[in-house]
Amino acid sequence: MRLLAFHEKVELSLVTSRKHVGKPISSTHTHLTGKVTLKYEQYSPGRVAEACDLAFLSVPHGAAQDLVAELLDVGVKVVDLSADYRLRNQGAYEEHYGPHRHPELLASATYGLPELHADEIKNARLVANPGCHAASAILATAPLASEGLLPGTVVVDSKTGSSGSGAKVSEASHHPVRTNSVRPYKLVGHRHTPEVEQELGLLLGEKKVTVAFSAIGVNVVRGISSTVHLVYPNREGPQFEERFLFKTYRGFYGDSPFTRVVKRSTGVFRLPDPKLVVGTNYCDVGFEVDDHANRVVLVSALDNLLKGAAGNAVQCMNLMAGFDEDEGLPKTAPFP
Amino acid sequence: MRLLAFHEKVELSLVTSRKHVGKPISSTHTHLTGKVTLKYEQYSPGRVAEACDLAFLSVPHGAAQDLVAELLDVGVKVVDLSADYRLRNQGAYEEHYGPHRHPELLASATYGLPELHADEIKNARLVANPGCHAASAILATAPLASEGLLPGTVVVDSKTGSSGSGAKVSEASHHPVRTNSVRPYKLVGHRHTPEVEQELGLLLGEKKVTVAFSAIGVNVVRGISSTVHLVYPNREGPQFEERFLFKTYRGFYGDSPFTRVVKRSTGVFRLPDPKLVVGTNYCDVGFEVDDHANRVVLVSALDNLLKGAAGNAVQCMNLMAGFDEDEGLPKTAPFP
Amino acid sequence: MRLLAFHEKVELSLVTSRKHVGKPISSTHTHLTGKVTLKYEQYSPGRVAEACDLAFLSVPHGAAQDLVAELLDVGVKVVDLSADYRLRNQGAYEEHYGPHRHPELLASATYGLPELHADEIKNARLVANPGCHAASAILATAPLASEGLLPGTVVVDSKTGSSGSGAKVSEASHHPVRTNSVRPYKLVGHRHTPEVEQELGLLLGEKKVTVAFSAIGVNVVRGISSTVHLVYPNREGPQFEERFLFKTYRGFYGDSPFTRVVKRSTGVFRLPDPKLVVGTNYCDVGFEVDDHANRVVLVSALDNLLKGAAGNAVQCMNLMAGFDEDEGLPKTAPFP
Amino acid sequence: MRLLAFHEKVELSLVTSRKHVGKPISSTHTHLTGKVTLKYEQYSPGRVAEACDLAFLSVPHGAAQDLVAELLDVGVKVVDLSADYRLRNQGAYEEHYGPHRHPELLASATYGLPELHADEIKNARLVANPGCHAASAILATAPLASEGLLPGTVVVDSKTGSSGSGAKVSEASHHPVRTNSVRPYKLVGHRHTPEVEQELGLLLGEKKVTVAFSAIGVNVVRGISSTVHLVYPNREGPQFEERFLFKTYRGFYGDSPFTRVVKRSTGVFRLPDPKLVVGTNYCDVGFEVDDHANRVVLVSALDNLLKGAAGNAVQCMNLMAGFDEDEGLPKTAPFP
Repeated sequence: MRLLAFHEKVELSLVTSRKHVGKPISSTHTHLTGKVTLKYEQYSPGRVAEACDLAFLSVPHGAAQDLVAELLDVGVKVVDLSADYRLRNQGAYEEHYGPHRHPELLASATYGLPELHADEIKNARLVANPGCHAASAILATAPLASEGLLPGTVVVDSKTGSSGSGAKVSEASHHPVRTNSVRPYKLVGHRHTPEVEQELGLLLGEKKVTVAFSAIGVNVVRGISSTVHLVYPNREGPQFEERFLFKTYRGFYGDSPFTRVVKRSTGVFRLPDPKLVVGTNYCDVGFEVDDHANRVVLVSALDNLLKGAAGNAVQCMNLMAGFDEDEGLPKTAPFP
Repeated sequence: MRLLAFHEKVELSLVTSRKHVGKPISSTHTHLTGKVTLKYEQYSPGRVAEACDLAFLSVPHGAAQDLVAELLDVGVKVVDLSADYRLRNQGAYEEHYGPHRHPELLASATYGLPELHADEIKNARLVANPGCHAASAILATAPLASEGLLPGTVVVDSKTGSSGSGAKVSEASHHPVRTNSVRPYKLVGHRHTPEVEQELGLLLGEKKVTVAFSAIGVNVVRGISSTVHLVYPNREGPQFEERFLFKTYRGFYGDSPFTRVVKRSTGVFRLPDPKLVVGTNYCDVGFEVDDHANRVVLVSALDNLLKGAAGNAVQCMNLMAGFDEDEGLPKTAPFP
Repeated sequence: MRLLAFHEKVELSLVTSRKHVGKPISSTHTHLTGKVTLKYEQYSPGRVAEACDLAFLSVPHGAAQDLVAELLDVGVKVVDLSADYRLRNQGAYEEHYGPHRHPELLASATYGLPELHADEIKNARLVANPGCHAASAILATAPLASEGLLPGTVVVDSKTGSSGSGAKVSEASHHPVRTNSVRPYKLVGHRHTPEVEQELGLLLGEKKVTVAFSAIGVNVVRGISSTVHLVYPNREGPQFEERFLFKTYRGFYGDSPFTRVVKRSTGVFRLPDPKLVVGTNYCDVGFEVDDHANRVVLVSALDNLLKGAAGNAVQCMNLMAGFDEDEGLPKTAPFP
Repeated sequence: MRLLAFHEKVELSLVTSRKHVGKPISSTHTHLTGKVTLKYEQYSPGRVAEACDLAFLSVPHGAAQDLVAELLDVGVKVVDLSADYRLRNQGAYEEHYGPHRHPELLASATYGLPELHADEIKNARLVANPGCHAASAILATAPLASEGLLPGTVVVDSKTGSSGSGAKVSEASHHPVRTNSVRPYKLVGHRHTPEVEQELGLLLGEKKVTVAFSAIGVNVVRGISSTVHLVYPNREGPQFEERFLFKTYRGFYGDSPFTRVVKRSTGVFRLPDPKLVVGTNYCDVGFEVDDHANRVVLVSALDNLLKGAAGNAVQCMNLMAGFDEDEGLPKTAPFP
């Protein structure tokens, strides 16, 4: 809502809620006081069709299935921030999220990562916005995947801030409990795994890849830093040359306004750090070559609520609407 | 100094410094005001021999080489917190730290991890206290190593607080710069790598292991959380059974007063988290099995300044002096 | 529970709960796993009388009124951590907390601040443990009050960590919301005000004092730092001489094992800072003279869960039981 | 530089430095990589006159004295972020900062708080940007001062983040030391005191006011929260009526785009909190009436590096250049 309220090409015309109908947006989002003066309305497809050309869906996984179908039916384009339409493979979805009531729509959805699917997004009516960890892991790894240079298993060790678990309070997010924690909250079985495999798989073509994903909560509010460990059977292949990596990464992201290759020879911020991207829509990606262990280490950093969620969703909307891809998206944030 | 000042079997008799000779300890360590009333003295082997049965060396890598030799010569036992005597292999040392002037002493040093070398430590005159990341990585992995169940490459993704880089100020540790950072400060080439390989190698026997180590700074002051990713070529072997892992880990650490196996079925703290060990000498270790990726994920948590440094050093001293292993070491800390 | 479990003179024999009967303590207090092996029991006065010589009451304000009466009836001494018996004046209590069902017991309760009431506490059957902000404000100000040197109004600006609001989760304590907040949560009308007025009033004797109290939440988990601003009508009186202040404060707290006078001429920690007392039972107090504004500024720092709550309660218990006043209470904590 | 680089009406044409001449800006300001492509140049008045219509001076107190004189001489307008031209009274300046070499210019400088001096700023050639604590304290108090309703002494208890002490590293700002500190670093004698007295005095007219100022460092990077305690001799006067306060504050700040009156009846953010203004140029101000102590408590919150420094400086520049007052200034920031 904040991004849309300040987006010069967009009118934020309708916000719906089941719980807060009739209340001003600012009653739940204090920081939007004076910026968003709408009140929450009741959802109905008709009301959305009347008010909007495009809708963002921010509902729990499962709940978006029917809403998407309804909105497409009444001619509203959709950017869905849930997982419901991210996976082309119904089985993979159902293994992680439960039954899908609209499998027929899965094929028509576009995975909303502009760095990979800009042309499809431009023409899409339904865009499935990536998971925050998935966006981070995929953007770190995609250039090497596109060169067919991944080992059979890709280890992703992804660190995230507390805002990743949402606005719902819990003991786990209680400030005294969460502060100073480094919490291995999902070392195996994370639901973003199949997304990463799907997207890297598409880039790889024939070759198969297994993603070994772990998520760790760290002591920040915003930010994801994913470390991707690629261990090869031997020290053969161009991926061990920094020059090749630079060329590959810069080439792959050359046109992308929000994904930057970061690898400096000196300074405190030699490699991507959420500190420098939180508050913006950037995802920074970098790499190191480990001669000792036949390993390439990739690292990416993004703001889980911007490039990892709402910012990327607006980026997709910009493409769908024919706006400049970076319109209304923060390209600068305070430091320190 | 804090631990020794409160240790009932120990008299803290001498603290030396080049920079602070003549000044009270509390002038540099405010929190010890009223607890340690000594003044810094000039170092000389004779003065140490006169005042001490055992000395702790906390000097930069390289600087401990000669001091150790001198102190052993005058009959003082040493626990050295530098890296100078951790590696049996002179070549590995010199690759990471530079020339060694007393290679003849390398073989007589004991690697000071009581969970692995308690008997040797009891009889040692020179104990090399482990690196903080190394202690964390080794303790997470040792039980599986002792069963010969490691893959050829062990990936360690180790997160650490800002106190790990010491008391020296720098732009990197400037509060406004360091706060909210998730900094991939040493993704490859970390100097603790050969220690981990040495110790896992000893447990493995014939089998060789390569450690692919990465260190990431997270937004806490104290605490290390190491995630160890073991990716196997297929899903064969007892390591994929939780029951086996429980038995192996509990068996391996059965007698160790400070290494606990933590893996709960519910709650916020299901797996090791520095939040629950910072301020104590514990290292908590846990594991998860990833059926999807033929992976076992290990995780350990310790306080980098206690079990990762001074606490472990006192634990070694206890063994060397014939005290109870846990004497004077914190077994409880405030929560939250 | 943590303090009692490690207290060498005490047996922690019974813990009651309405919600958790039958469950192990460690199910709610993970950090006590292996340290406290009791299970929660149902409360009844008889069961307490059977198991305990002294009980600590940690229930909401209002709920302690009857429990205290019941426990005194069955001969159990009580340290009550609620506000129910802190105020001698029933009217003041009822204005802030609601009706009191046992006003007849108010006079028999001792305000549990050992620095002020050690002798009474030794002989007390009912001790009312101070509020955390109140303890901090009173200890900062008591020496000047005892000299009759307060102005008519005492301004207290008290900063506290998030643990002060308890274990109950809420939007206000949600990590993403609470982090980086400096929240003026109770600028006027704070319930600890009458406690401070009562205790300063007792020290002042005839003179009356009004306390103008404000509480602000700051971005730490533990710790209270109270700034007390004393503005005088003119620059007359011994309170403007540092020498007098040193003498008065040192004299007043000379015998107190946990209240230290901290005012250094150099260094980072020139004045009390929670950073140096969190994890211990200390309260540090200091002062500055403001020649410009005819003001004396006092400052105190304590750990709101130790000297501001449980630590102070155990200190009272030590006195009541005839133990050393500092038995089992933390006098050191890790730094940094 | 960040604000100017994104300001649509401004060209950032020159940045000078003694230390970094020839190096790109991004070598010291990583977050401006790709945003500011200039290199540091050597300072000379001629070079500035050639390149700029207006210069911002960010040099230590004292060092700006001559530079201002030189730049005015060559016809460049100046916004000076040092304290050198903030005080009309030379004696007050010299008491706090040392000798002044250009006292003749003091009278021609305008104190750069647009809420108080918008018209003068529009016509000024030299604007002295306020101190961060001073801006916060003045904005909290000005409306009551303008009504002549201050007591003789105004107590200001001002909390600030670590970025307030600048980019220079020190033990005091070392992350392990500074984290979790609540540091009373300047309880008396703070140099912003005379600024606050000057500006409140101008509003009060005949009446005199003494400011009793204290600065406390809290555990955030950015943000100031000032609590202003106004204790009156009795409960008489309109300032004890909330309705009057609302009217007075709203009236006073009615035209100001960046100072908002914040006092809500419910919610987590009932009163100003840096959490909601950090990253923006806003200063939020609020109040509470304390019937018990004849006190009015004021509170303000701002980002010390924006409204407390660079943001306010750009706001002044906008007025001096005839731009919209809020041009190029952040009016939204991410939450949480």
